[in-house]
Amino acid sequence: MKKSWLTIPQNSDFTLYNIPFGIFSVDLEGKHKIGTRIGDFVIDLSILQSFGVYRNVEEVIEDFDTIINADSLNLLMKIGNEKVELIRQAIIDAFIEGDKFSLNDYQEHYLHLANAVQMNLRFSIGDYTDFFSSKEHATNTGLMFRDPTNALLPNWLHIPVGYHGRSSSIVISGTDLHRPKGQILPPEGGTTPIFSTSKRLDFELEMAFAIGKPSNLGDTISTKEAEDHIFGMTIFNDWSARDIQQWEYVPLGPFLGKNFGSSLSPWVVTLAALEPFRIESPVQDPKVLPYLEFEGKRNFDINLEVWLVTKEGVETRISASNFKYLYWNMAQQLAHHTINGCNVRTGDLMASGTISGPTPDSYGSMLELSWKGTKSIPLSDGSERKFLQDEDTIVMKAWCEKDGIRVGFGEVSGKILPAKNDA
Amino acid sequence: MKKSWLTIPQNSDFTLYNIPFGIFSVDLEGKHKIGTRIGDFVIDLSILQSFGVYRNVEEVIEDFDTIINADSLNLLMKIGNEKVELIRQAIIDAFIEGDKFSLNDYQEHYLHLANAVQMNLRFSIGDYTDFFSSKEHATNTGLMFRDPTNALLPNWLHIPVGYHGRSSSIVISGTDLHRPKGQILPPEGGTTPIFSTSKRLDFELEMAFAIGKPSNLGDTISTKEAEDHIFGMTIFNDWSARDIQQWEYVPLGPFLGKNFGSSLSPWVVTLAALEPFRIESPVQDPKVLPYLEFEGKRNFDINLEVWLVTKEGVETRISASNFKYLYWNMAQQLAHHTINGCNVRTGDLMASGTISGPTPDSYGSMLELSWKGTKSIPLSDGSERKFLQDEDTIVMKAWCEKDGIRVGFGEVSGKILPAKNDA
Repeated sequence: MKKSWLTIPQNSDFTLYNIPFGIFSVDLEGKHKIGTRIGDFVIDLSILQSFGVYRNVEEVIEDFDTIINADSLNLLMKIGNEKVELIRQAIIDAFIEGDKFSLNDYQEHYLHLANAVQMNLRFSIGDYTDFFSSKEHATNTGLMFRDPTNALLPNWLHIPVGYHGRSSSIVISGTDLHRPKGQILPPEGGTTPIFSTSKRLDFELEMAFAIGKPSNLGDTISTKEAEDHIFGMTIFNDWSARDIQQWEYVPLGPFLGKNFGSSLSPWVVTLAALEPFRIESPVQDPKVLPYLEFEGKRNFDINLEVWLVTKEGVETRISASNFKYLYWNMAQQLAHHTINGCNVRTGDLMASGTISGPTPDSYGSMLELSWKGTKSIPLSDGSERKFLQDEDTIVMKAWCEKDGIRVGFGEVSGKILPAKNDA
Repeated sequence: MKKSWLTIPQNSDFTLYNIPFGIFSVDLEGKHKIGTRIGDFVIDLSILQSFGVYRNVEEVIEDFDTIINADSLNLLMKIGNEKVELIRQAIIDAFIEGDKFSLNDYQEHYLHLANAVQMNLRFSIGDYTDFFSSKEHATNTGLMFRDPTNALLPNWLHIPVGYHGRSSSIVISGTDLHRPKGQILPPEGGTTPIFSTSKRLDFELEMAFAIGKPSNLGDTISTKEAEDHIFGMTIFNDWSARDIQQWEYVPLGPFLGKNFGSSLSPWVVTLAALEPFRIESPVQDPKVLPYLEFEGKRNFDINLEVWLVTKEGVETRISASNFKYLYWNMAQQLAHHTINGCNVRTGDLMASGTISGPTPDSYGSMLELSWKGTKSIPLSDGSERKFLQDEDTIVMKAWCEKDGIRVGFGEVSGKILPAKNDA
């Protein structure tokens, strides 16, 4: 077991096996800096340079000085996963038992308490794509909204179905969002739309991956090459206004029902850190077309939880799912996305789609948990929900654990504020 | 009539009434610079500064020096249309009859032949949204693919329907694209998809507007405020692979059928230049919800043409349409897009959707012109098309003309190369 000379609380997501990347500032106005997290500390990675932590790395990474002193992760993400891993190993090496750089004596220069800094969007997001890769979720929505005898659409088992989302409204964990307004059909029935605040506000439990190495327009990325282009993963809450979505989405897909906001967890966990938690994917039947075939374990065993926190602070775990349930893996998603020559850029974000498990307590949205509002979701204080109320906070957690090794993502949280009165 | 001391060919799109903005470089590797176009000349706008052209403007626009020397239009777009108009008027003033700055004596410093420079993407595009605002196009696709007795979907007359597109693959006019590959249903029938090059490759005749002044997450933009946020317009070719799209698009909308490439014309024409060509919109019945109501003339009379050029260079005009046919105007599109609090950023692009007119010769796609491949589109050399062949070039043109004043967009062109053999 890797132990650090820094104190890491038991059950911390941020062990020496993790070493994620993020962007922090000491306050809202402060300079954005690259950091990692160990236990309850945020480490300023640029300051570590002066202690010689990267001395072996600096020789092999061009412009290392610019990369580690940047105000976003984009430059770091672009250099390729092999080089990122050299940096990550150098950091692990500096904090492992035995303080070879005398870092312990100079903590005030690079160490911050995690709850005392502001976390920021880690990279400039180009395009954001949302997939729809949980068979359970696709089946559930099919059962509710389409033909119950034929819940999965004909293309679903052949294509990792996805669509383009809006990147401008992706926010960092802790950003509160106003309840959206728009056109909905009258809740009491009728075919003429009304203007209203959303009455069916929901979350979607997702994970997202960020593109590191880009590709050129016209080129494809094979399932074998795909993971070289994936810098790392985060938790993703794809907030959804079901009534707005339901009225607008045929035939061109979700739009205003989604683009009022999506929330990202602040730390990007690399695939290298997730290596011990690889797991087989669900069997795909019918057989996929050759460009979607893959070798090896391409799924990951990541525990997922959704907590609802009321205005009064009462916490209820309303869902427990797992990333491993996804039918389509990230390699397949990326191979599909580029099979037509579509290019990907450093910072592009690809989300999984709602990750529902096989049992009702593992569904990844209130739409499914309340089965379209036909049953109640009980909360710890005896109250209940069908959809989100104003001042409700949703907290999503994700972590891996195996053989005593824990690597986690922390959490993504967001509160729903009342609708604005400006229109 | 405004006349210039520079020679402007008759029927030029680039009269003194236009003065669009674009980014050029003297060659592929050259520095990107802000320019405008007059007649057949590209004018280097940063060089004009040293001649005193902007002396009255420099005082009122903060950081003017940085803005006019930038390598993209983003900074310029952000300052707001009133200030952009001051710059535009200063340029008109410098090139109108009577050369008050002695510019004529120093042409070699700022003047380039349009066909001798490289035009580039004018601004960094954040998000790209595609609307679906032509009633004729929506009706035609409904007739072909859905219920012919009920071609328009229930939401269409209430909502300017739109969806998110991919910005990474938006390219400048003159960029050739490879025929995309992907999953399609067998052309000869059957329900099991095959891997194939697209057999139904198409264009879509569209116009797009670019966001200048941004908005904040949670805020709305009213129809009255909308045009203040629109920096200008361009021609837009939303290339479409109909067979890929048809198989993938239910339920989340178009994805790989579109994101292999979209082409933009190089010059952004401001709304100020289009002012003389304002025109009433089609009557909207049923009445729209209050947030979509608008006052004044919000449509523009812009002639549109699509030309197909064969490998041998034979040119055929295959469609003649007009921007004025659009049922939903740009102010309504932007008000709808932000009614849920979705923010817009400088450089975001919003396309109109295919602009089809009421008659078969004004349809804006081959899908409609060939009525789903059931009839042939005749070409000048006696050959015919249903969809695009390899080495076909599509050229779209757009211009306004009224009372002897002409303001045009130039053209957007792109050639279809054979599919790549890499997968």
